[in-house]
Amino acid sequence: MPDKVLDDISHRRFNPLTGSWLLVSPHRTKRPWQGQQEGPSKNKLPEYDPKCYLCPGNKRAQGDSNPQYKSTFVFVNDYSAVKEEQQEYTPEVRDDDLSSLLLQAQPVTGRCYVLTFSPKHDITLADMTAAEIVPVVRTWTRIYASHLAANHLLHKQAADFLAEKKEEDEVLPSPPKEQLRYMQIFENKGAAMGCSNPHPHCQVWATSTMPEEPGKELEQMTKYRAAHGGRHLLGDYVKLEMEKEERIVWQNDSFLVVCPWWAIWPFEVLVLPKRHVRALVDLTEDERLAFAEAIQEVTRRYDNLFETNFPYSSGLHQAPLDCTEEEAENSYFHMHFYPPLLRSATVKKFLVGYELLAEPQRDITPEQAAAKLRNCGGELYRKALE
Amino acid sequence: MPDKVLDDISHRRFNPLTGSWLLVSPHRTKRPWQGQQEGPSKNKLPEYDPKCYLCPGNKRAQGDSNPQYKSTFVFVNDYSAVKEEQQEYTPEVRDDDLSSLLLQAQPVTGRCYVLTFSPKHDITLADMTAAEIVPVVRTWTRIYASHLAANHLLHKQAADFLAEKKEEDEVLPSPPKEQLRYMQIFENKGAAMGCSNPHPHCQVWATSTMPEEPGKELEQMTKYRAAHGGRHLLGDYVKLEMEKEERIVWQNDSFLVVCPWWAIWPFEVLVLPKRHVRALVDLTEDERLAFAEAIQEVTRRYDNLFETNFPYSSGLHQAPLDCTEEEAENSYFHMHFYPPLLRSATVKKFLVGYELLAEPQRDITPEQAAAKLRNCGGELYRKALE
Ligand SMILES: O=P(O)(O)O[C@H]1O[C@H](CO)[C@@H](O)[C@H](O)[C@H]1O
Ligand SMILES: O=P(O)(O)O[C@H]1O[C@H](CO)[C@@H](O)[C@H](O)[C@H]1O
Repeated sequence: MPDKVLDDISHRRFNPLTGSWLLVSPHRTKRPWQGQQEGPSKNKLPEYDPKCYLCPGNKRAQGDSNPQYKSTFVFVNDYSAVKEEQQEYTPEVRDDDLSSLLLQAQPVTGRCYVLTFSPKHDITLADMTAAEIVPVVRTWTRIYASHLAANHLLHKQAADFLAEKKEEDEVLPSPPKEQLRYMQIFENKGAAMGCSNPHPHCQVWATSTMPEEPGKELEQMTKYRAAHGGRHLLGDYVKLEMEKEERIVWQNDSFLVVCPWWAIWPFEVLVLPKRHVRALVDLTEDERLAFAEAIQEVTRRYDNLFETNFPYSSGLHQAPLDCTEEEAENSYFHMHFYPPLLRSATVKKFLVGYELLAEPQRDITPEQAAAKLRNCGGELYRKALE
Repeated sequence: MPDKVLDDISHRRFNPLTGSWLLVSPHRTKRPWQGQQEGPSKNKLPEYDPKCYLCPGNKRAQGDSNPQYKSTFVFVNDYSAVKEEQQEYTPEVRDDDLSSLLLQAQPVTGRCYVLTFSPKHDITLADMTAAEIVPVVRTWTRIYASHLAANHLLHKQAADFLAEKKEEDEVLPSPPKEQLRYMQIFENKGAAMGCSNPHPHCQVWATSTMPEEPGKELEQMTKYRAAHGGRHLLGDYVKLEMEKEERIVWQNDSFLVVCPWWAIWPFEVLVLPKRHVRALVDLTEDERLAFAEAIQEVTRRYDNLFETNFPYSSGLHQAPLDCTEEEAENSYFHMHFYPPLLRSATVKKFLVGYELLAEPQRDITPEQAAAKLRNCGGELYRKALE
């Protein structure tokens, strides 16, 4: 490693995906911690919880009953952050220009789904095998495919994927009439990450507007490609990380798992396909399994690291649902994991005062984090305790 | 209010200070909460805690003893995130261009201080009178003034302020030899905001680099001024909010407290001077008191809102320590408060999955938040319980 000095000194690193900097203070892990600690995760959940609104057969808030589903199950969120129908809002052409400059708003419509990973209340992705995660990847792909604009560059692929229906594929709610712009698939796992139900699930929020983060990434990827003879930022990054071998956590033939150079969260991880994949519908059957393997490796290593049910937020970034050919081509599918734990099962990193007011700050380096995650493969710690 | 419809529909609002959007879903407060709850804040602290490293007379981690200070006390953080001296680091001119494009780093030096608000272990800003907060504002001003570059537009004012030393002004550590670029003054209050010691204090991190957030703000304010005949973005915003009266929490002759149009945190507040103030050293003696009053009003109302010791991160943004005349002129002093509580003393808003992966999202509107904060002035709730 040429820049060994970065293990000891404060420095900033640049995130080319978002175009912003963060502060790294590796020496700071020595400070004692007397602040808030997370409660230990309660591992003793029942396989079926009659009070859980996600378990098969149970009633949900608005009175609907869940089917006796066998793998995944998708439904429209009973408390959606965005809705398909709402009152019209067209910002008035204001009489004074200050309001239209400084009080800008735009309406957002869309739909929010909840997507369970398994009928079992007491497991997580880390407890599932890659083969068991494949149906999750398939459901993500189907829901994405079914929302794609009719004139989308990937529409034919999407239609083909939907056509090759498997027996276990459940019937998805039919997509909203209005064509939406972007679909964000994400998981909040653990109480520390605001998750209010341990039943393994993720959320899907599809909106009429392009959200900030994927918007910034697409802009940066587009600029990079234009400046570098059509090469992809993340394609080049995969190549570089495979050469350097300093931040790799795990890899197979199709996917690379790294703690990115610009990681903010202590054990932040980026899952990248090794070839240019624009969206879920680009993945071949083999690649879906390879991706499921990557997810399995990340979540199991997370749990093994501090021998706890590791909290995180994760999510997929890919081509918008409705976009130009160029936007679709410039997109490079990837998955982020943002986990808060820093030193143990109970001590997390707080991104607070300085981070909110000035700049994100991290303590251990991404290289140190990657080394730790590389070394905690092996069987899920809970298995050995059984 | 012309846009009453925004009380009911999902929409995005634009933050002209940072140039980014956020999602507002007012109808979403109806959802039940079954997730993590904050522990009740323990109000029974001793006035002096022999184990606290901030109390007068006590020993700190590295062995230094605190003086028997009477109001504020400033010392260099024993676990600083940045240091004055460290190994040299000059990014090598790399042989391959991928590394220099995708693995960018720059060294950061600087100094971190801790600044106590009072010798009393068991109070907060909300318990102090405006007159008692004035020495805190004075200490902020003195530490800022003492770090200003010799050729700074405000240097003469800074020197004058330092010269009019009052008896109670303690001796500050002398500033580092190297001229630093920016000083971030911020407070993390409460365990929920990563604060590990309840003794009332804030932090000051001064760095050789310009951090992201104030950097973005200065850029946006500079663009606005250039496009609007020299008018200040925040000056115009003050004028507009005083006309609209929809988001005002409180005001006096010199300062306005609003829940900004673009607030992300449920009860986020922005404290703005009514005239163009570039930095702390611009404030007159009367304005320092007016500013202390604003801080008192915000923190007391916060505590009254849910009758709890309200957690938040807060911080000052002002002219950089070392900058061009134009940068100093374009700066507009203000204070942000970012508090996490949403519905009660124990239920906070989590900025997690969607917020991290896609876009910040809030539930109640800033107008609703401002109305609640307007209506909870009056005596500090704890006083009535005594
Ligand atoms: O310096 P403290 O109070 O120990 O630490 C707290 O504030 C810092 C600055 O916002 C953060 O980096 C830490 O994560 C937080 O726990
Ligand atoms: O929708 P949930 O799981 O109830 O809520 C959680 O995730 C949302 C999306 O990231 C956040 O807006 C909420 O603050 C969080 O508690």
